[in-house]
Amino acid sequence: MADIISPHWHIEFYAPDEAHMRGITKIYASEQTKYQKVEVIQSSHYGKCLILDGHMQSAQLDEFIYHENLVHPAMVACPNPKKVVIIGGGEGATLYEVLRHKTVEKCWMIDIDQRVVELCDEYMPEWHRGTFKDKRTILSYEDGRKFLENSKEKFDVIIIDIPEPVEEGPAYMLYTEEFYKMVATKLNDGGMVSLQSGCSAEKELRCLAAVHNTLKKVFPIVYSWPANVPSFDIPWSFTMASMKTDPKLLKRDQVDKILKERNVGELKYYDGETHEGLFFVPKYIRDGFVKLTEIIRDNSPLTYRFMGEEKNAK
Amino acid sequence: MADIISPHWHIEFYAPDEAHMRGITKIYASEQTKYQKVEVIQSSHYGKCLILDGHMQSAQLDEFIYHENLVHPAMVACPNPKKVVIIGGGEGATLYEVLRHKTVEKCWMIDIDQRVVELCDEYMPEWHRGTFKDKRTILSYEDGRKFLENSKEKFDVIIIDIPEPVEEGPAYMLYTEEFYKMVATKLNDGGMVSLQSGCSAEKELRCLAAVHNTLKKVFPIVYSWPANVPSFDIPWSFTMASMKTDPKLLKRDQVDKILKERNVGELKYYDGETHEGLFFVPKYIRDGFVKLTEIIRDNSPLTYRFMGEEKNAK
Amino acid sequence: MADIISPHWHIEFYAPDEAHMRGITKIYASEQTKYQKVEVIQSSHYGKCLILDGHMQSAQLDEFIYHENLVHPAMVACPNPKKVVIIGGGEGATLYEVLRHKTVEKCWMIDIDQRVVELCDEYMPEWHRGTFKDKRTILSYEDGRKFLENSKEKFDVIIIDIPEPVEEGPAYMLYTEEFYKMVATKLNDGGMVSLQSGCSAEKELRCLAAVHNTLKKVFPIVYSWPANVPSFDIPWSFTMASMKTDPKLLKRDQVDKILKERNVGELKYYDGETHEGLFFVPKYIRDGFVKLTEIIRDNSPLTYRFMGEEKNAK
Amino acid sequence: MADIISPHWHIEFYAPDEAHMRGITKIYASEQTKYQKVEVIQSSHYGKCLILDGHMQSAQLDEFIYHENLVHPAMVACPNPKKVVIIGGGEGATLYEVLRHKTVEKCWMIDIDQRVVELCDEYMPEWHRGTFKDKRTILSYEDGRKFLENSKEKFDVIIIDIPEPVEEGPAYMLYTEEFYKMVATKLNDGGMVSLQSGCSAEKELRCLAAVHNTLKKVFPIVYSWPANVPSFDIPWSFTMASMKTDPKLLKRDQVDKILKERNVGELKYYDGETHEGLFFVPKYIRDGFVKLTEIIRDNSPLTYRFMGEEKNAK
Repeated sequence: MADIISPHWHIEFYAPDEAHMRGITKIYASEQTKYQKVEVIQSSHYGKCLILDGHMQSAQLDEFIYHENLVHPAMVACPNPKKVVIIGGGEGATLYEVLRHKTVEKCWMIDIDQRVVELCDEYMPEWHRGTFKDKRTILSYEDGRKFLENSKEKFDVIIIDIPEPVEEGPAYMLYTEEFYKMVATKLNDGGMVSLQSGCSAEKELRCLAAVHNTLKKVFPIVYSWPANVPSFDIPWSFTMASMKTDPKLLKRDQVDKILKERNVGELKYYDGETHEGLFFVPKYIRDGFVKLTEIIRDNSPLTYRFMGEEKNAK
Repeated sequence: MADIISPHWHIEFYAPDEAHMRGITKIYASEQTKYQKVEVIQSSHYGKCLILDGHMQSAQLDEFIYHENLVHPAMVACPNPKKVVIIGGGEGATLYEVLRHKTVEKCWMIDIDQRVVELCDEYMPEWHRGTFKDKRTILSYEDGRKFLENSKEKFDVIIIDIPEPVEEGPAYMLYTEEFYKMVATKLNDGGMVSLQSGCSAEKELRCLAAVHNTLKKVFPIVYSWPANVPSFDIPWSFTMASMKTDPKLLKRDQVDKILKERNVGELKYYDGETHEGLFFVPKYIRDGFVKLTEIIRDNSPLTYRFMGEEKNAK
Repeated sequence: MADIISPHWHIEFYAPDEAHMRGITKIYASEQTKYQKVEVIQSSHYGKCLILDGHMQSAQLDEFIYHENLVHPAMVACPNPKKVVIIGGGEGATLYEVLRHKTVEKCWMIDIDQRVVELCDEYMPEWHRGTFKDKRTILSYEDGRKFLENSKEKFDVIIIDIPEPVEEGPAYMLYTEEFYKMVATKLNDGGMVSLQSGCSAEKELRCLAAVHNTLKKVFPIVYSWPANVPSFDIPWSFTMASMKTDPKLLKRDQVDKILKERNVGELKYYDGETHEGLFFVPKYIRDGFVKLTEIIRDNSPLTYRFMGEEKNAK
Repeated sequence: MADIISPHWHIEFYAPDEAHMRGITKIYASEQTKYQKVEVIQSSHYGKCLILDGHMQSAQLDEFIYHENLVHPAMVACPNPKKVVIIGGGEGATLYEVLRHKTVEKCWMIDIDQRVVELCDEYMPEWHRGTFKDKRTILSYEDGRKFLENSKEKFDVIIIDIPEPVEEGPAYMLYTEEFYKMVATKLNDGGMVSLQSGCSAEKELRCLAAVHNTLKKVFPIVYSWPANVPSFDIPWSFTMASMKTDPKLLKRDQVDKILKERNVGELKYYDGETHEGLFFVPKYIRDGFVKLTEIIRDNSPLTYRFMGEEKNAK
């Protein structure tokens, strides 16, 4: 056996009764920062992987699915995105995808954890591809909510690329109605918000439904859609919102034209046809948005420890 | 630790370096039939599960995603499905979904492995819900290809619900151009073929692309789409084909009307909106269909042992 | 892979960073009694296994090593054992080994957990071999310490066959100086005490050393020795004590003669040569007895959660 | 879960249904040499570990048990060991233990795999403690059997420190009667042979019994004894042999005196009392030596792939 099976494994426990085993060949980094446990490993199947607090954040093989869904639908929907801000985004791949749009003049990236960004800069060039040093990039290490509150800028696109609100993680105050209300005041006319919104499996729909419905309290236009990032094991979701720009009105030819005009280059997941498909969502997700009516607020944030055991934080 | 973590696990090795661990509480059955290793287990997260040759076939929690995708798009597209044949389908859930369409007068279910059907009948009533005993059901234990070759009937819908062509499994001769050609001769005018077509992850696209392209050699109309069944861990796909009925022409209201007229009842994944979405496929899948040009033939079948190690059978 | 590797596993986590995986084919029983989690499983390598609170108690393949070490050295050392009491001993194998000595007239077995004994009676006849129904057996379900305190009998051999003092387990008050003092008053002249005394690995020596040294406060004659039960993964230990009988004085021929006279029958681990070897202990264990000076008392019991994290209970 | 349980693991599959999981924090080296897969990892429980072909060779925490058993009984039994040869011994710990005996004038270490020694030299100084550079050390990278055949030297102690004869591993021709016969001719008068002889569990006794009985065909004096190295998970064994020196005649005081005279320094496992205990072996092992009568010869070597599946090599 020992000669066939991978000897070293990363095991991700989603729950006390669900785990995924990934054969690994290297542990590039494994350290506890001020905010979280950070690991960069080499999976023999998925390539390099970033793991935060034990959970897969992105893998070399399929990070394109995550980052293209997070960035391009909102960027394309926004008529002329010049100023963009990314909250989180440590790997630098979100930054890379944003900067592919030639309209962008400035892109702020605000990550609370400087050490994560340093480790990604050192070990994961395949993600950021040098964009931490792009002239348009403004990197800042601070709390994303405070940054936005204090910012005198307004933005065309605000991208929230942070982990789900796992208990005691750094992220749970960036999912509340109060936060989204403040975000709305920081958008230019026609501006878009885009975020990852957690698992889209039927049994774990509570986070996605709460994020969707909380955004709906603030923004008239909100779309959520599932996407599957194989290295996550569980199906994922993304959500975009705006005060008046409706991304659904864009048809495939328009999307493909915009991508071309902005010199975005060859994408792997997203194009006009993919864009049109975002607005058709399996029935159980739509049903979930109706049945699960929780709204996330500063005084009743959503947090959970693991799959199947979500609970309200005190 | 021992008191928090599940003590018993089913570990599914997809490859020597990828595995999923599911906490289990019962092993209902575990036996080697003439054709395959069959196991029925209780996963604490996913409920009852059927495992064939070590690979998850369907789980109580999310079998609806698999079976609704496999059955309803093709059944709805077919104007008046009276005679349906299922090749495989051991659990009986495909049969159950077919019989929900009140137009159906006869449904043949042809599974090569009688023992699998017996175990599903005994341990998995949540799947078949008594339909093995429905008056319209004709159960037969034989090779599906031979059954169709010898059949004097023609069918409105032919559903192929068999495992992927894993090396030495019983299924690999039901994926070839010759087989599909024969299938085409067994369809009534306007008839549909529907099948599961394996993993839709970019790295494992070879099976889906080969099935899609092989069907294209026989049927002018072929659609493949991804769907995510969380208990499978990896994203899945389905494909339907026909000589002249184009399911894409059906819009959401028509689909919802047909479901209602046929008394199908409440579905969880599929409805008119879901139907429209089937025809928008992520770019990497479309690109794969162009790049991966393999055609599966009787003398060059597709088989593979595990993820990432597909190979041509001799 | 799926066809070579066992699909079902029992995983025993000794610690957050140490675990053993045993391929299993059946889960005979898995229930929470009033006192502990009980499981009876079929390991394909070790045969049937009893698991309490997630930890292997005994396996069909090598329980003989555990039970022969626990029972025979003390029984043989005791000149004429007629009355024996077993505290714990749920599987019934300790009882079986005791009753092989034809001198025994009465054997009390006092287990706090009736349900464990019932499950062992039903699923593990290979251990008890019918001795629960032997005329000499007196089974009682109660706290072993209270039983001894209240007992008006005195005994020739007292065997303590209980789990290590895992935090909140039922056993930790049967390892204290006060308990052993009381035990001493219940022994007939020349009587022996025998017990399992936990792991004998250098890193986990605290339990064994504390048990040894606590017994030394009460009994002038105390011997501990290591023995290896492969299904435990970690090396184990046993200890016997007495007020005046010195088992070391028995040489191999005497031991073999006693076994023969008492009609004990063929043993697998123990005989005269094995007996002589018990009194030669690797240096690190002897050194540990000197360095680790903790004494276990009612108001400072020893408990621990897992390997490498022992601590004093509050 | 993810925050309590080790995220990275080394999993050693002994068999398709038995495996041990060790939490790891670093992979120092992982490479395929000309002869074997070599890995140096950091286990959080056992410290640094050397893994060859997937199997634990030695761990920082308990290598002393292995190396003291392998070296000191034979060295102490040999009246005046000046010339010693180690066949294998890559880590350098065997060399270190040999050189602690001040009588030693020259110690040859013959390992077939130079790369293993280089990796141990670089990553495992805790084992060799600089002795690769000791003036008395003669390192040579070649086949141990050929070295001895060609050697014109005779030796006082020959130590064979190689893996068990795993199928296709480099070691299986160093376990045969022909090899031992040749070894006997290379011993000085009164010389000793010492070797590790594999697992001592009852179910896996075939290797130990065959080694013991094969040595018996050549040497009149052969002793085997079990020892437990916790990081091996399964109980281990060692064997020493000679033409006329009988180590059993040495009593504890003599052993302790020899260790002192030779300035060996503080040992952890071995001393006079431990020495005396080596000659008392559990009954099942003695019984095994009688029942398992296989003799290993060049044309019928012993090899096996994993626990419980030993077989004769072709």
